Amino acid sequence: MGQDQASVFDLAAVAAASNGGNNDLLLPPARFIGGAQRPSAMPYTKYVAYDKQVPFDYPQRTWPEKRLRRAPRWCSVDLRDGNQALVNPMDPERKLRFWNLLIGMGFKEIEVGFPSASETDYDFIRMLIERELIPDDVTIIVLTQAREHLIRKTYEALRGARRAVVHFYNSVSVLQREVVFHKDKAGIKKLATDAATLCKELEGEASGIDIYYEYSPESFTGTEPDYAVEVCNAVIDVIRPTTDHKMIINLPATVEMTTPNVFADEVEFVSDNLTNRDAVVLSLHPHNDEGMAVAATELAVLAGADRVEGCLLGNGERTGNVDLVTLGLNMLTQGIDPQIDYSNVPEIRRTVEYCNQIKISERHPYAGNFVFTAFSGSHQDAIKKGLEARQLAADRKGSPLDSFVWLVPYLPIDPKDIGRSYEAIIRVNSQSGKGGMAYLLKTNHNLDLPKRLQVEFEKVVQEYADTTKREVKDEDIWRLFKDEYLPVEASGVTAAGVVVGDTGDESLTQWGRLKLLKVAVSSGEDGSDTVLKARLLDRGMKDDEPVEREISGMGNGPIAAFLNAVSGLGITVSVMDYAEHAMTAGTDAMAASYVECQIGESPESSIIWGVGIDSSITTSSLKAIISAINRSQR
Amino acid sequence: MGQDQASVFDLAAVAAASNGGNNDLLLPPARFIGGAQRPSAMPYTKYVAYDKQVPFDYPQRTWPEKRLRRAPRWCSVDLRDGNQALVNPMDPERKLRFWNLLIGMGFKEIEVGFPSASETDYDFIRMLIERELIPDDVTIIVLTQAREHLIRKTYEALRGARRAVVHFYNSVSVLQREVVFHKDKAGIKKLATDAATLCKELEGEASGIDIYYEYSPESFTGTEPDYAVEVCNAVIDVIRPTTDHKMIINLPATVEMTTPNVFADEVEFVSDNLTNRDAVVLSLHPHNDEGMAVAATELAVLAGADRVEGCLLGNGERTGNVDLVTLGLNMLTQGIDPQIDYSNVPEIRRTVEYCNQIKISERHPYAGNFVFTAFSGSHQDAIKKGLEARQLAADRKGSPLDSFVWLVPYLPIDPKDIGRSYEAIIRVNSQSGKGGMAYLLKTNHNLDLPKRLQVEFEKVVQEYADTTKREVKDEDIWRLFKDEYLPVEASGVTAAGVVVGDTGDESLTQWGRLKLLKVAVSSGEDGSDTVLKARLLDRGMKDDEPVEREISGMGNGPIAAFLNAVSGLGITVSVMDYAEHAMTAGTDAMAASYVECQIGESPESSIIWGVGIDSSITTSSLKAIISAINRSQR
Repeated sequence: MGQDQASVFDLAAVAAASNGGNNDLLLPPARFIGGAQRPSAMPYTKYVAYDKQVPFDYPQRTWPEKRLRRAPRWCSVDLRDGNQALVNPMDPERKLRFWNLLIGMGFKEIEVGFPSASETDYDFIRMLIERELIPDDVTIIVLTQAREHLIRKTYEALRGARRAVVHFYNSVSVLQREVVFHKDKAGIKKLATDAATLCKELEGEASGIDIYYEYSPESFTGTEPDYAVEVCNAVIDVIRPTTDHKMIINLPATVEMTTPNVFADEVEFVSDNLTNRDAVVLSLHPHNDEGMAVAATELAVLAGADRVEGCLLGNGERTGNVDLVTLGLNMLTQGIDPQIDYSNVPEIRRTVEYCNQIKISERHPYAGNFVFTAFSGSHQDAIKKGLEARQLAADRKGSPLDSFVWLVPYLPIDPKDIGRSYEAIIRVNSQSGKGGMAYLLKTNHNLDLPKRLQVEFEKVVQEYADTTKREVKDEDIWRLFKDEYLPVEASGVTAAGVVVGDTGDESLTQWGRLKLLKVAVSSGEDGSDTVLKARLLDRGMKDDEPVEREISGMGNGPIAAFLNAVSGLGITVSVMDYAEHAMTAGTDAMAASYVECQIGESPESSIIWGVGIDSSITTSSLKAIISAINRSQR
Repeated sequence: MGQDQASVFDLAAVAAASNGGNNDLLLPPARFIGGAQRPSAMPYTKYVAYDKQVPFDYPQRTWPEKRLRRAPRWCSVDLRDGNQALVNPMDPERKLRFWNLLIGMGFKEIEVGFPSASETDYDFIRMLIERELIPDDVTIIVLTQAREHLIRKTYEALRGARRAVVHFYNSVSVLQREVVFHKDKAGIKKLATDAATLCKELEGEASGIDIYYEYSPESFTGTEPDYAVEVCNAVIDVIRPTTDHKMIINLPATVEMTTPNVFADEVEFVSDNLTNRDAVVLSLHPHNDEGMAVAATELAVLAGADRVEGCLLGNGERTGNVDLVTLGLNMLTQGIDPQIDYSNVPEIRRTVEYCNQIKISERHPYAGNFVFTAFSGSHQDAIKKGLEARQLAADRKGSPLDSFVWLVPYLPIDPKDIGRSYEAIIRVNSQSGKGGMAYLLKTNHNLDLPKRLQVEFEKVVQEYADTTKREVKDEDIWRLFKDEYLPVEASGVTAAGVVVGDTGDESLTQWGRLKLLKVAVSSGEDGSDTVLKARLLDRGMKDDEPVEREISGMGNGPIAAFLNAVSGLGITVSVMDYAEHAMTAGTDAMAASYVECQIGESPESSIIWGVGIDSSITTSSLKAIISAINRSQR
């Protein structure tokens, strides 16, 4: 391209200069609170809006009305586009391990390498073919630039294969035509059709291989859509695919350059204007430069794309290729079979991280460590209630829980369906409320705290969290709970509710005045004349010598009788609320009792909860009352 | 909600059951190559398509036609939503450091905490107010649930503030109404309006604070859009904002549940149906569960949103809030001033990682370590050509390069504009071609290799890469280059082209037969009678004793004379191509010479490149010829 021709930089410079004169760009949003945002010193006039680089509109678009209804055809390019972008590309052992993962997950199309550019890729493809590692229903794809010597070497690499896709590409964007290839539109199109012609020629010589074709107008996103269609149609005319023997036209968002609605418009335009559309599989190859590759892919599938190329967990040049795991699991959450097995995301992640030697982020959708973790109190509370409501609804319908519809606040997917556990769902920090703490006590310790007790205990946890300023782990919550509510000698109650003796954990142990040593209850048929005798250890005030006391009382049940008995010690207790439940199934299960007591008679007397755990439902409730008394006297 | 009422689970179960009967879902895409994809064992019937959960369509949509033209109002929720989702929430020192970063970047709205739920947040807000750390043009936002005691505590936290936004929310989704709140639509709406009424009451008592309001219908994405509008309008009716004193209506994608076109439809519907729209700032609060938060935000801004809440680099519950850095820099690449200073992304990243104690991914847009790195050979080649073409175009226009429009293949943004360097742009591994290697030699060593020399040297690098199977670092390339082309005694030529003596690096040093010791050239006016005398050290064959030789020759210039002279040693050389350039500016610059020589006379004689570096342009070209001779005799 000579100096006399218009340059892409001329167009761009005009567009960029116009940014500065565009009031719409310079005007800050209307002032509404405090100061308005100010212009920054960022050099925005240096950049050209996408629609000025590639003017295009497609009012005929239909994709915004559509919804995803089925999975596209998937192609993994992990062994190629992903692999080329690694500091240390995979050695044969890693490549084979990745290959086996992909086969196991059900991928039927795998791009395995660029054999004309890399000896390692060439050797790997030879190994797959010679060691017969390619299952019958799996097709390998090999990539090559649209250049003669590279295409020839590509066919060489395929000797003895049963079936393969030869994927050739050339860059067709405005910018690359000028600065890289120095060719006009006709010249660039000829590169593509020459390559297609050579391929057909070599196909004639490659006996026994069922060869399919894929053509990519590389840098599609930087190309005028009508020119991209022109080049693709010219290639289709050479390859002459049929509905029985289709070819792939693959549109690479080599660089993500704009919002995904524009990309979807472009894809719908191409889909509507391809020659022999029924004989073409329209494919996407999105990159993630602007962080929108997943969205761009989903909208472009709505716009008519049949097939998606990407990498597991989004590996690939720069910001990566589109993440196939996120795409597949997004489909699952919409009731669509992804047709790929994502049931063991942790294993997928381990393999990918091992092979790529790159860690994924803690917040990576579906796979990151924190994505099933709720720290927010209200979220925790809602998750807990949602899980309970789902259980209840499933029980009512008589559905097995595993198959019952998943509708749980804040959790778009059941962690179990992708091989992850519930363990980390609830984590408690200084920002959490009672929901998380209650969930943990229920899940891990079989204690189902009444709501007002949750509120009371929340303050204890909150104070601890605010003091330590760190995550409050499950063991911290359990220690705080034991120390606050359970008698010292029962502090070794395990998570499953089994008493194993004192843990010797003195760090938080609090003084408790009374300890139940023995209790005998006798009653008539209707409980109205219950007589209770108990022996207590009374440790009195903090430094008193402990003494044993016998107390007795009567009432219409053991609790009333016990309250009557302790009044003999000068302690007035009335029970405001009461709850009790078995901690495990079976007759030898422990029972947990919760009593809300008013201690003392004055209006200012404290209302306080107590908790008791015992194999006897009677003893556990008496222990709960003692727990409340002890707490009130601290 | 009683057992008799319809449950969300009933609706959902119906929808889920229908998945199984939907052929559209079960039918795999048409077979076109090899085996078709197979149904997986993923339990897709357990999930309900979003449009069955929240049926909605908005054919009046206008957003697909629109393009981004200016930045929205930004609000950072790093100190709140981000902070609550950390294993270890920030201590006061970290919070203050983050606050200072946000202020420095130009954020005018910062959500600072949930003071009624966390003592730490409460104390931090008190500190900001009491120590007068809030600049005049910055407004703090405090979050509270729509509950009386929490709202009261929130106002307490604001004592003495100049101005603040009270942000209250309640969850309004179908699911949460049923499983968490057990209230019908009217009951949920009343929670919101009661909160608004209480706020107005407390505002009357809070003298001296200029109070604004923000209301969030939490779980908006799980809510019928018309009901969300109904609740928002009821709140607006209580708050009575004016165009001079607006309120914020904030739509949280608390959980990302669908493709962003649907979210954009919902936002446009709300925007079109809000009461008193001119007095409302319509805001977004997107999360990233399906990996599409950035796209959902951009499309929803097209759909009418005025303001965006998010976190730097996408921190936040589960998969995080939308990433403000990506959003802002996406705008920059479209020629839009983001109105936030992102000129030092490495510093932003360091601070965020320090405060959050979470690392971002290597492939995170704009901020990840690898996002300006090209490993692909064709990408490297195109980047190199693109940078050169840009330089040339800027020179032609007489524009300073820094302000000249940025159009470079594969690099959507100039790394320098966000405080990143070019150093890592090109990295070479076994998948790379000549482009990267040539770029590195040019950028770091001032050597601008002719194209055929690049092709020759590429084979050397490729062989090394295929053997070591690791990234080939710049120092490896330089070592390979020196060893291949430069005489042993000049192997200490530094990156800047200054000879510093032998490096003693023996690992790859190759034998070279001839060494130029001294040269004298005399010529007439037009160079036609050039006489050259040279003293060479001739090391003969590998184990011979070195001898010094005097040679002389004549020709029409020093190269011709030197070729004539070496023919006296029985070596026939003809020069096929020749290039030379200064390595640095100034009269004492070193010159690099490249000669392509045919050594020997037979048709099979080798064509080979030589390279010479010297302060004399004559000597450097003679050294280049010797380099070629030595290489041919290895």
